[in-house]
Amino acid sequence: MCDICVMNAVKQKMLSRRSFFKGSAAAGVAALGATAATTPAMAAGHGTVEDMTHTLHEDFPTYFGESQFSREQLFNFAEHSFNLQQYTVNEHTGTHIDAPLHFSADGASVDEIPVSQLIAPLCVVDIAAKAAEDMDAQVTPDDLKAWIAANGDIPAGACVAMHSGWAAKVDTDAYRGFDGTAQHYPGFHVEAVQMLMEQTEAASIAVDTLSLDHGISADFATHYAWLPTGRFGIENLANLDKVPAAGATLVIGAPKHRGGTGGPARIFAMV
Amino acid sequence: MCDICVMNAVKQKMLSRRSFFKGSAAAGVAALGATAATTPAMAAGHGTVEDMTHTLHEDFPTYFGESQFSREQLFNFAEHSFNLQQYTVNEHTGTHIDAPLHFSADGASVDEIPVSQLIAPLCVVDIAAKAAEDMDAQVTPDDLKAWIAANGDIPAGACVAMHSGWAAKVDTDAYRGFDGTAQHYPGFHVEAVQMLMEQTEAASIAVDTLSLDHGISADFATHYAWLPTGRFGIENLANLDKVPAAGATLVIGAPKHRGGTGGPARIFAMV
Repeated sequence: MCDICVMNAVKQKMLSRRSFFKGSAAAGVAALGATAATTPAMAAGHGTVEDMTHTLHEDFPTYFGESQFSREQLFNFAEHSFNLQQYTVNEHTGTHIDAPLHFSADGASVDEIPVSQLIAPLCVVDIAAKAAEDMDAQVTPDDLKAWIAANGDIPAGACVAMHSGWAAKVDTDAYRGFDGTAQHYPGFHVEAVQMLMEQTEAASIAVDTLSLDHGISADFATHYAWLPTGRFGIENLANLDKVPAAGATLVIGAPKHRGGTGGPARIFAMV
Repeated sequence: MCDICVMNAVKQKMLSRRSFFKGSAAAGVAALGATAATTPAMAAGHGTVEDMTHTLHEDFPTYFGESQFSREQLFNFAEHSFNLQQYTVNEHTGTHIDAPLHFSADGASVDEIPVSQLIAPLCVVDIAAKAAEDMDAQVTPDDLKAWIAANGDIPAGACVAMHSGWAAKVDTDAYRGFDGTAQHYPGFHVEAVQMLMEQTEAASIAVDTLSLDHGISADFATHYAWLPTGRFGIENLANLDKVPAAGATLVIGAPKHRGGTGGPARIFAMV
């Protein structure tokens, strides 16, 4: 029997079965609970988990300004008794990874990033106050020094994240801040990532905006300084306002397609 | 300056910069270490992390037997000074999620799975011995009872995973086990998932094969029993031979595209 024939053959059977399971579905959902804040597993030792991932959809803002995600329904429940889509996505869309290969000829692809770097101490550098005054603001060495003065050394393997407050704008034109000529949003100053490379063992940087470089950058200085050294980046990170400056662990669910220059990721913070 | 013009403008600048960063790249990689087993963050309290994700590529085996992943290079380093691809993927490819919506008219889509269910106590039910004798083997209620007798109750929110030994076959035709008429690989018996629904608060099941149902299933009984109740599944999970039967925590980096019926995921086990 062909695959589709099998699907059609079970349709009637399934329809009669559904009413039976309707009751257990409701019971199951009720029993499992639904808060994102705590889970049975987390309660054992981690405390809470925060989802650091924006929902991806066709209209998610992009660097290039055009939609970079589309999907096609290949099977639908009414006709085939199951739902299945395929989607097409630019690797640098939504909450996503910039692998070293993105800005280098032969750097590590996204599937080659060591797992040891995907479980990372999270250092949140809060520049929201200055970003509210200046949409072209950057994380500078002074911001890093202030973080260190308040929280101690940046741990080995850390992900150093810029919290600019931009995640709250994700559904508005202000997120991309395009004025007809250039984009406007905060990012990392190249001198800040040079400091991280020279003085720390940070493995990644993250931003809550569309680019590691601030939007008006004409030379991608931060991308070119950071990624070719084998370190990676995260763009469009969400919910940095909900995690502490130090002490959380970021679990970076990077995609693992062979040879990828990056890709949409699911990212959690264990607080 | 247009985006591409910016890219080209920095090409020469970048080329001269690369030699400068070559040294720091090597130093950075050396300093960070590269084992997947332990990380600075994990050392604090978690022990080790195991990557439970197969690498996705064009030839990854699929239920339907055709390639379900393709990619296109939109920008390349030689011409544009950066690399960028887009890819097209069937949601049910590689190590991936089956959301409730996959086998229901209106169940939760992949982005709607509660985060509380994505951090899950992992229960590994090892049927590798009987699967080595019978490629159509299934996890039965007796297998679950044996697990409980050895390890205690299945925790609330658990992911109950079938370890059949099939992950080792992923690069061979034996993974799909197609004999010209039907596929042959292990899966969950519908009575096992009924037991999980009735007697436990497990939130998900996982298999190290192409389908929650065993390959010769003609009716997808397990899919239709489990998914419409609001619970979810994981297919093509890797490395179940490297984690304990009980005690690990699975971190399920499900994709978060709106309305998805599932999708490739990055999954770690914290041991």
